[in-house]
Amino acid sequence: MEVNLQLSVERLHARYAHALDADRLEDWPQLFTENGSYRITTAENEARGLPLPVLYAEGRPMLRDRVASLRHANIYEPQRYRHMVSAVVVERLDEGTARSVANFLVIRIMEGGDTLLFSSGRYVDRIALAPEPRYAERVVICDSRRFDTLLAIPL
Amino acid sequence: MEVNLQLSVERLHARYAHALDADRLEDWPQLFTENGSYRITTAENEARGLPLPVLYAEGRPMLRDRVASLRHANIYEPQRYRHMVSAVVVERLDEGTARSVANFLVIRIMEGGDTLLFSSGRYVDRIALAPEPRYAERVVICDSRRFDTLLAIPL
Amino acid sequence: MEVNLQLSVERLHARYAHALDADRLEDWPQLFTENGSYRITTAENEARGLPLPVLYAEGRPMLRDRVASLRHANIYEPQRYRHMVSAVVVERLDEGTARSVANFLVIRIMEGGDTLLFSSGRYVDRIALAPEPRYAERVVICDSRRFDTLLAIPL
Repeated sequence: MEVNLQLSVERLHARYAHALDADRLEDWPQLFTENGSYRITTAENEARGLPLPVLYAEGRPMLRDRVASLRHANIYEPQRYRHMVSAVVVERLDEGTARSVANFLVIRIMEGGDTLLFSSGRYVDRIALAPEPRYAERVVICDSRRFDTLLAIPL
Repeated sequence: MEVNLQLSVERLHARYAHALDADRLEDWPQLFTENGSYRITTAENEARGLPLPVLYAEGRPMLRDRVASLRHANIYEPQRYRHMVSAVVVERLDEGTARSVANFLVIRIMEGGDTLLFSSGRYVDRIALAPEPRYAERVVICDSRRFDTLLAIPL
Repeated sequence: MEVNLQLSVERLHARYAHALDADRLEDWPQLFTENGSYRITTAENEARGLPLPVLYAEGRPMLRDRVASLRHANIYEPQRYRHMVSAVVVERLDEGTARSVANFLVIRIMEGGDTLLFSSGRYVDRIALAPEPRYAERVVICDSRRFDTLLAIPL
């Protein structure tokens, strides 16, 4: 059991969750490597091998772009997310890289106070370990193929 | 703090969750010892000491049987689960055995994309540690006494 | 990575969850230091710096008082909670103290069996580490400003 590997990957997932949930979106690209990629897809597309992501961004500049456009967008309905991450399985791929699979659940809190189960699924990640753990690739595989049109904040 | 014990039990729970959520039901009996038992009950029955499980299976052959009948059953409405496991408290019972209590939450995703809170409760486990951690006994204590008639996939 | 610190704080959070979920409310004050404080507030008030907690208790006697009044209160609708805790980030403040931020989700199970998403938010804690980890301060920051009038059991 690689204790340090397990806990440092869990810590990366936790920091990711808090960056989004606390609306510190500008911190989000920093959790990826310089060329790190981020992809949201559905379980259905993934099972069929369809390379049809709902959203795709590669490299920190593109991730920052996405945050910038979110900041400038006119989101009519203010909302907040709450991420729960669980069942984190980590495997070392080589000296400097690990693979992680984890379950997630995202709660969405609307301005009026309504709270709803927004999204669930799996994070499948390739993680560069040095100098500190960062996502070289994060694939967000959502259970439901139904997407809210306001899918704005990263999952 | 027995670090390795804690993390290896959490890893067992994580592998359990992923086996069910990824529809790898055939892997599920392997997470139990040869004579391992699996029982679903309700908090109400458990509090009253009623030995009235909603479901009971003892030994891998019986666990495999259950999977086989699920595979052959005519489930009208395809569904998927997503397990969240949290608050894992592990105590060593003796050299080769541990006890674990954990909270769970199971999300159910229907074919149309609807996502609902399906079940919550506690896992109370006796775990055989060698050669690798496996359930000698898993008791699933559901908070709600209401059960969906389609209660098919293990919790 | 301070492995023992991380896991012993996670264990405190887990014991907290189980004390409440198993209706062992009398164990709850023991998880705080003698002068430990407990505060429930909303994300909105916290963001505005409003010192307006929904609930405040300081010191074990006051925490015990709260439990006693809950036990004597006429709660019309029996209910149960299920706590999920995730994304636990722990930082050491000094030799004897740590800070923890974690996400939570509380499920509420009504007597009839209905299960609902009751509350989500963040735990922000100051933890005294010796002789064993205890809350010197727990702040429960709820995402929603809507509170059920029956807000009775601690979150």
